[in-house]
Amino acid sequence: MNIVLLGSGNVATHLGRAFKMAGQTIDQVWSRDLEHAKQLADTLASQAIFDIDDINRSADLYIIAVKDSAITELAKSLDLTDKLIVHTSGSTSIDALIGVSDHIGVLYPLQTFSKNKAVDFRQIPIAIEANNPDDLAAIRAIADRISEKVTELSSAQRKALHVAAVFACNFTNHLFAVSQNLLKEENLDFDLIRPLIAETAHKVQLYDPVSVQTGPAVREDMEIINSHLEMLKDQPELQDLYKKLSQSIVNLHKHPQG
Amino acid sequence: MNIVLLGSGNVATHLGRAFKMAGQTIDQVWSRDLEHAKQLADTLASQAIFDIDDINRSADLYIIAVKDSAITELAKSLDLTDKLIVHTSGSTSIDALIGVSDHIGVLYPLQTFSKNKAVDFRQIPIAIEANNPDDLAAIRAIADRISEKVTELSSAQRKALHVAAVFACNFTNHLFAVSQNLLKEENLDFDLIRPLIAETAHKVQLYDPVSVQTGPAVREDMEIINSHLEMLKDQPELQDLYKKLSQSIVNLHKHPQG
Repeated sequence: MNIVLLGSGNVATHLGRAFKMAGQTIDQVWSRDLEHAKQLADTLASQAIFDIDDINRSADLYIIAVKDSAITELAKSLDLTDKLIVHTSGSTSIDALIGVSDHIGVLYPLQTFSKNKAVDFRQIPIAIEANNPDDLAAIRAIADRISEKVTELSSAQRKALHVAAVFACNFTNHLFAVSQNLLKEENLDFDLIRPLIAETAHKVQLYDPVSVQTGPAVREDMEIINSHLEMLKDQPELQDLYKKLSQSIVNLHKHPQG
Repeated sequence: MNIVLLGSGNVATHLGRAFKMAGQTIDQVWSRDLEHAKQLADTLASQAIFDIDDINRSADLYIIAVKDSAITELAKSLDLTDKLIVHTSGSTSIDALIGVSDHIGVLYPLQTFSKNKAVDFRQIPIAIEANNPDDLAAIRAIADRISEKVTELSSAQRKALHVAAVFACNFTNHLFAVSQNLLKEENLDFDLIRPLIAETAHKVQLYDPVSVQTGPAVREDMEIINSHLEMLKDQPELQDLYKKLSQSIVNLHKHPQG
């Protein structure tokens, strides 16, 4: 299969590598920035382009992997009438591709990608969507080549999944950063917390998060909570986060289905 | 070494197991609830007691592993003048044990424990504290038997570590629960998010969390953020959390040292 990759960021990089490793050909890598296109194209034995008119029009699949806010504009500049084209966004409707081709869809890999950290793509869930059963079957066949966890989701479901991922991944990573800063203030190393983070994530691979909640909030231990709030009194933003998250834990455990 | 364990909850259970596996003797398990004491004592080949007057006064170490709010009251009921006694709390000062014995200290294992989930205790950081160098050396020797990661921390440092752990563990686990509930509303399985959680936790084993932050907030992608807030409009508590956490990410990335 011949693929044209539109984008050169984290998602484009990891998707490109995954398809390459699965034996597919990445014909071209397009980026508005030719240097970025070259960097990625070199690792994929591919051609770098920056002029949208240079796109090879005989590929089997066109993958838009640019930031969400750039999808619509990029799509408008494309005309691939009879070709299969997908975007890779969690929060953008399939409708953003209407008019580009008769065969449009979504291939959203649900993972947090950093350019230099390898991931096992076969374990990454991929949410797919298309406007008709034939295109859906085609996208499924393509996604199956790189992941064992391909699921059809509607645009609404995919968006809910994206919001859920922001809570479970982006916000938690931020709380790790907050934690590291709190330790720094007392000259403590983040290594002290790392095993705890690993265990917290490991637990929810096996159990439901609600059932393994620990800490002062779920015990409604107001003495500890108040002493922590007192400690954070010079950092009102963190104090407020601490209060809101503790209250949310209390509320959830009173009404587990939120 | 002979140990008396005061408490029968998660921390007492895992500490008891760790010392037992390290070849130590758990003389007695005390709990206000004899049934709880029996359950734990049975697994440790130990004696269960519920009357504080039945405590064996010839053990080498007394470990208070009850909830923080119960430590002071329990300590008051003890008189172990020349014996080594420690509590296991992250947020309670060593001073809570003044008067119980001339040899007091803290042995705080930094981990999230659930009764039925085994942990590798040797990798769990243990923060220790004592009022004099001899007792500190004794506590260090004891802690070394079960963990490779024993560190001396002041009460103030230990408390900061505890608050940092609440952010990095308790609050993140809650966000996993929030995420699961968001998925349920769209009939989606939490399994979709589990690989993402594992990868997020794995990344920060290798990198600093600030450097691997992803998501709409760090990109200040207001279009996505607003569409997510719109999705959460019927859940004002979650909408507020989303706003506060996103703003906190933006702030931290403007001033990385918080």
